[in-house]
Amino acid sequence: MNLPDKRIGAQTVRLADPPSVLAEASGAGKKEGDGPLGRLFDTVYDDTSCGEKSWEKAESRMQRETLLKAAAKARRSLPEIELCYAGDLLNQCIGTSFAMRELGLPLYGLYGACSMMAEGLGLAAMAVDGGFAGVAAAVTSSHFCSAERQYRLPLEYGGQRLPTAQWTVTGAGAVILGRDGPPPYITHVTTGRIVDGGIRDAGDMGAAMVPAACDTLLAHLRDTGRGPDDYDLIVTGDLALYGMKLLRELMRREGVALGENYTDCGVLLYDLKRQDVHAGGSGCGCSAAALCARILPGLRGGEWNRVLFCGTGALLSPVSTAQGESIPSICHAVAISNGRD
Amino acid sequence: MNLPDKRIGAQTVRLADPPSVLAEASGAGKKEGDGPLGRLFDTVYDDTSCGEKSWEKAESRMQRETLLKAAAKARRSLPEIELCYAGDLLNQCIGTSFAMRELGLPLYGLYGACSMMAEGLGLAAMAVDGGFAGVAAAVTSSHFCSAERQYRLPLEYGGQRLPTAQWTVTGAGAVILGRDGPPPYITHVTTGRIVDGGIRDAGDMGAAMVPAACDTLLAHLRDTGRGPDDYDLIVTGDLALYGMKLLRELMRREGVALGENYTDCGVLLYDLKRQDVHAGGSGCGCSAAALCARILPGLRGGEWNRVLFCGTGALLSPVSTAQGESIPSICHAVAISNGRD
Repeated sequence: MNLPDKRIGAQTVRLADPPSVLAEASGAGKKEGDGPLGRLFDTVYDDTSCGEKSWEKAESRMQRETLLKAAAKARRSLPEIELCYAGDLLNQCIGTSFAMRELGLPLYGLYGACSMMAEGLGLAAMAVDGGFAGVAAAVTSSHFCSAERQYRLPLEYGGQRLPTAQWTVTGAGAVILGRDGPPPYITHVTTGRIVDGGIRDAGDMGAAMVPAACDTLLAHLRDTGRGPDDYDLIVTGDLALYGMKLLRELMRREGVALGENYTDCGVLLYDLKRQDVHAGGSGCGCSAAALCARILPGLRGGEWNRVLFCGTGALLSPVSTAQGESIPSICHAVAISNGRD
Repeated sequence: MNLPDKRIGAQTVRLADPPSVLAEASGAGKKEGDGPLGRLFDTVYDDTSCGEKSWEKAESRMQRETLLKAAAKARRSLPEIELCYAGDLLNQCIGTSFAMRELGLPLYGLYGACSMMAEGLGLAAMAVDGGFAGVAAAVTSSHFCSAERQYRLPLEYGGQRLPTAQWTVTGAGAVILGRDGPPPYITHVTTGRIVDGGIRDAGDMGAAMVPAACDTLLAHLRDTGRGPDDYDLIVTGDLALYGMKLLRELMRREGVALGENYTDCGVLLYDLKRQDVHAGGSGCGCSAAALCARILPGLRGGEWNRVLFCGTGALLSPVSTAQGESIPSICHAVAISNGRD
């Protein structure tokens, strides 16, 4: 295989001129605002309708306002954002289409379920590194109420959940990348492959996504020649409580020990003892809000210097579940560092 | 605005080292096989169930087989495809997720409705030009029966259509790009913005997409300093019969005359007099199959030397329509040339 310059393995690229994270912003709902990251979100919507007439429009407004906030923090006007990568969980990604309708940004729509922030971040980083944009953005969102209506049952039904079930985060995250700027930098992108472990239970999406997370983590470590200890933090999103345990076990069987530096966005967002979310958070907004409220600020503050951000997505739909199919999943990994390596 | 090297305007990049179209492949259903491009498709599925138990699985099979065919024509093994960009119209893009599940390719999932082939082609071209992949693929599909079930009514209902309605193409297209290779080359990518002309009629998607097509065409011509006559062929997909007329009119009002070199994938796929498809074709598979069966081979054969391929997508969903929303749309344009400019 004739690898181009930036390609350092079957799934990983090392960016030649690592883009700077100019700014990030996060928005979240009331429940998330009551959680452990509550004080860290740029905006908490105590009214999760966000003043709109439908949950779908509420999600769009939250996504749009989060992107505008990130642009303002980066001191960039909208026309300076030359490429935007965005997506969400809703059918035909209407959360994004209606969020972006008023902004006039050159846009690539994505679908990668809950891996969306890692997917968009990786693509935006490649766009900047490749010379296609001086400034690029990645944004995504999810909303508990729009997701419940679409994937499960109307809220009014009040269905019971399994202990393995996850709670769709009402939240959004937006990142603005630029060619030149201060740390942190995006240094590596490992593109995921679809992996299907045969899990058929849509109430156990953490387990369904574990094989994809394992596949991408192993690819990243193999391609970069790194070990888990080369990162101050490895964070998956959103395997949640049981998925995390399964990933540790699966990685252990592959000869890789994930230590104390491993965590998951699904357990960062909520207080699992106090808040009734069962195994933890999920949704595109879960890893996006955790990245933008906790992880990137933690890098800026020197709490960590090198982080591997692994977005995981369960690529099921109510139709595939009804047809008896198992759940294909994907995980994209992005290395973020205060240095340029 | 500090433009990076490859950026030549607000929405357009000129690729420094234009990627070669190594090969393309197309698959289509029986009705499409009976149309004007019938003999040009690599595969015609006379049984549009493709031997599968559901329409969704049929679409997945068609998409997968089309990608495999394109890889075979490019004489590349699957592991040589370093990045793949794919998407479809189905909720959560399950057409793609299940198509790609068995292939193990590093994958970025997209959603851009019927603009998907232009979106994927642009992203794949940037990935190759940026040094992120030596070989990259773009693939998409649509299926009349899976789309009807999801967007409109069960087939058994036999609903009547408006004259402006379009027929979702059962078809798929896949393109393999490489760093080095013969013409045609991808020379420019113009990324679309979401534009909403206020059309609320989901039975007139051509009209809904026209403002986006106009916006992107004008951006492309402005950014490149070109006129319509600099292209041997300008092809939108899929505005269909009435949308084409509206685009000509809208462009004329902007001072740009689209001449005889302008056509639309929605009218290429079917014989509008003989086949009962009303205004023409639509669906991700429409422009994808037209590109791969007719346009790229036409470039190879020297029938045209420079083509502007403009994929148009209507970003509606049954939910947004039910909520009384208008239809946001997007159009991405990709310039393809037998020369490197």
